[in-house]
Amino acid sequence: MPNSIDTGSDVLYVTPTKFAFSLLGEASRSDILQKAVKRYEAIIFSWNETNTPEGPLLTTVMISVDSINDDLKFGDDESYILTISENIGTISSPRIWGALHALETLSQIISWNHTHHYYNILHAPYLIQDSPRFPWRGVMVDTARNFLPVDTLLSTLDALSFNKMNVLHWHTSDAEAVPVESKSFPDLAKKGAYSELGIYSQEDVQRIVTYGLYRGVRVVPEFDMPTHNYAYGLGVPGLILDCPISHPIETSYYHASFDPTSESVYKFLEVFLGEMSTIFPDGVMHVGGDEVDYRCWNETASIIEYMQENNITSFPELYAYFEKRVHAILGTYNLIPMAWDEVYTSAKSVLPKNSIVHVWRGDDTLSKAIKDGFRVVSSSDYYLNNGFDFGGLQVQWQDIYNNDPMPQGLTPDEQKLMLGAEACVWGEEINHNNIEQRTWFRAGVLGERLWSNQMGSEADVWVRVMKQNCRMQQRGIAATPVENMQIFPRRDLRRVCTPFLIPGYKQPDLRKL
Amino acid sequence: MPNSIDTGSDVLYVTPTKFAFSLLGEASRSDILQKAVKRYEAIIFSWNETNTPEGPLLTTVMISVDSINDDLKFGDDESYILTISENIGTISSPRIWGALHALETLSQIISWNHTHHYYNILHAPYLIQDSPRFPWRGVMVDTARNFLPVDTLLSTLDALSFNKMNVLHWHTSDAEAVPVESKSFPDLAKKGAYSELGIYSQEDVQRIVTYGLYRGVRVVPEFDMPTHNYAYGLGVPGLILDCPISHPIETSYYHASFDPTSESVYKFLEVFLGEMSTIFPDGVMHVGGDEVDYRCWNETASIIEYMQENNITSFPELYAYFEKRVHAILGTYNLIPMAWDEVYTSAKSVLPKNSIVHVWRGDDTLSKAIKDGFRVVSSSDYYLNNGFDFGGLQVQWQDIYNNDPMPQGLTPDEQKLMLGAEACVWGEEINHNNIEQRTWFRAGVLGERLWSNQMGSEADVWVRVMKQNCRMQQRGIAATPVENMQIFPRRDLRRVCTPFLIPGYKQPDLRKL
Repeated sequence: MPNSIDTGSDVLYVTPTKFAFSLLGEASRSDILQKAVKRYEAIIFSWNETNTPEGPLLTTVMISVDSINDDLKFGDDESYILTISENIGTISSPRIWGALHALETLSQIISWNHTHHYYNILHAPYLIQDSPRFPWRGVMVDTARNFLPVDTLLSTLDALSFNKMNVLHWHTSDAEAVPVESKSFPDLAKKGAYSELGIYSQEDVQRIVTYGLYRGVRVVPEFDMPTHNYAYGLGVPGLILDCPISHPIETSYYHASFDPTSESVYKFLEVFLGEMSTIFPDGVMHVGGDEVDYRCWNETASIIEYMQENNITSFPELYAYFEKRVHAILGTYNLIPMAWDEVYTSAKSVLPKNSIVHVWRGDDTLSKAIKDGFRVVSSSDYYLNNGFDFGGLQVQWQDIYNNDPMPQGLTPDEQKLMLGAEACVWGEEINHNNIEQRTWFRAGVLGERLWSNQMGSEADVWVRVMKQNCRMQQRGIAATPVENMQIFPRRDLRRVCTPFLIPGYKQPDLRKL
Repeated sequence: MPNSIDTGSDVLYVTPTKFAFSLLGEASRSDILQKAVKRYEAIIFSWNETNTPEGPLLTTVMISVDSINDDLKFGDDESYILTISENIGTISSPRIWGALHALETLSQIISWNHTHHYYNILHAPYLIQDSPRFPWRGVMVDTARNFLPVDTLLSTLDALSFNKMNVLHWHTSDAEAVPVESKSFPDLAKKGAYSELGIYSQEDVQRIVTYGLYRGVRVVPEFDMPTHNYAYGLGVPGLILDCPISHPIETSYYHASFDPTSESVYKFLEVFLGEMSTIFPDGVMHVGGDEVDYRCWNETASIIEYMQENNITSFPELYAYFEKRVHAILGTYNLIPMAWDEVYTSAKSVLPKNSIVHVWRGDDTLSKAIKDGFRVVSSSDYYLNNGFDFGGLQVQWQDIYNNDPMPQGLTPDEQKLMLGAEACVWGEEINHNNIEQRTWFRAGVLGERLWSNQMGSEADVWVRVMKQNCRMQQRGIAATPVENMQIFPRRDLRRVCTPFLIPGYKQPDLRKL
């Protein structure tokens, strides 16, 4: 739901032969906007229109932006104003990202009439003044547990944009695999990926990042450390501790850890993270930090020795030392650091104040980190893989929707530290066959919840969620049904989730747009 | 796992240019076998073979069957003997269904070597004597809550055959929709389906039934009654009771019920079920019978009156009366009746002894129905949609595997009444996007458990389940991963679940084979 919406009671008609977007001034020089209007023309006009009714038309939508700067960064202005009246619609926004959101909104307002086979707009005229409640609205995908083809990631970027979400958090590596190509360390992916075919080349990465850029979606990479990274050691010897007692690598490789006392580890990270910051230009880098297992450190003589020599009296202190070194490296590349909440819990004293704490262990930690002055992104309630690989209960969309992401008891200043949330889709039981199904429609409900605090009645929410679900399916996203079709009160609406059955329906070819 | 398997320690090689199936005698006149060998050639030889090694080959597999009778019925012999030795393999079976299973087994024994790029057979020679432990191994799909395209059902039939399963239980209708075309009552689907596009024409049904036949999979239709059938009333007035007090049709249509006192209902069923028995030639017909809600009957004056006039003293008695009439109709068409276990619980006195009781409410009911002399099919532990629309926990594949479907405490004669099981995939949150993912690989684990009681070690089971999962994916079934790829001890094996990444991999076009 938009932040603010004024509507009327008129009906306008739209017909592709008498409709055009018009990019005004600066906007006409933005390649992103040029491509976006083509894309949305294909999305909007994908039905087999056979009738052009008599009546007032919407013929032109004029788009203007204050700046066509296409450097997509955290915190960019995403606001827009959309007006629709007879003949003329207008989209205006400070940045191109707002205009992209406005196009999405427009595409949801122009509807195809299944009975009369024409396009129309109900409740015109419109004045929509809109901007997101939270600046961070994301989905996390995991390409370490199973390889996800490039096309699957592109599809996720499309679906994010359809839900006005703006972050793809790419958990690139884990104990199981390191699939992203590094030019500095070619063996890293060559030996650390599942196979030589399961590698993202740097061209692949660029394609993914650019595809996101053109949809206003940032790609935030994660390189998880000091644990969850056994596979780094396959290509670069000397990084991973050998801890044969507590977790021999053959059977419990997922406990393996970087050697926090090894200078060559920090040398490696300096080069590796520097290179990664060039192929992932977002400016925020996630360095994991979750689930460190101290047993390995405890049984390694060189570590105990190092701690004694350097007056490090506990493992959490050693862990903080590691994080301090890693964050110093991020600092040299001017990266905003992001890490899972263990880094805050165990090492907050060394965390730079511009760190983003990614909370996955409960809302309590969320409030605490905010009270300590850190910016936070919340994921505790949004593990969409729950109920599957991790057992337990599936996260229901109603729970996502009914849960206000903003924690209770914060001052207005503290509330500003709450950046938003990410739905996480951990990959143990996820592949290209089910990631879209597992993610959508539920992540879209989170997207809506993060966009605005306008809720609407329960019945209204059902129909809106269902419509958005069908809309994603119309555009080629393999969303799963909210409920049976009967939820739609009108029989003709029940067809929209099976557009492939409808003669003449042309699914937009999003890869080419 | 086969029932009985003897293996050796030789390696044989297989190369498509020097390999042929040979249909002997009668077998050569079976269209089903002719198509099956073509299909399995495409399935087996789908990799990009570049090397033909020196060494002993398997060059011919001779197939003979005692009978090419292609009337696929419950209880048909499915046994086969498969031998593989240098040069010659043999498949022999009483019926063609056994030969189809043997081809599947052979396709799993011939493996592609990812390193050397050739096909080989390890552990030759083979002598496999095989037959299923249970004759009923199925999956139930629901086309009433959401429409499933014909292609989705064909895909399910393929996947069933890959897992040596032999029943597609098609829950055709429910309160929400009646999507199968009836020539006798054309308005039934025209008005009772979600839309005029969400209808299975009789040609569609024939295509589905025939596709199953060619894979040895029976299609058992279900027409649920006397409740779960509101949509029947949309096309044929007078069938459904109007019960505005307890469940007005606008809001609780799923409680609607046939009028059990109306002769026109039985007239309708006589014609309708007769017609359905011609387009669904299986010989078993499932007539539902679950979740009858007596509140509606209780508030209908004509029903109370009828009960008084006919000395029917309770609603269960009226329910039994309805079932008696329905089963009498099935009897006139020589159909084996099948129904959900409520029919057994509430109306067993009227149930013909040849009835199959489909148990969904616990293993207790299963044993009781068997002790009462009924044949049973078990589904209580196999609701693959659990954890999704019905909340609660997902059914884990390990639970399916570790659970012996045979109830404890039965005599050998009673054990014969345990026909097998079906994995149920209720459709509230299922569509063409996620039905394969929700069903497979888990239903395949049930298939394996129903086929034989050979278990193997736990580690062995993991690898076998994973391999079968990847095999399905190679053949185009959108199965979800068992775990991350690391479970495969050999790195080259980890590619098999992403065959589309492998240069030259040709996915078999199963629709044409």
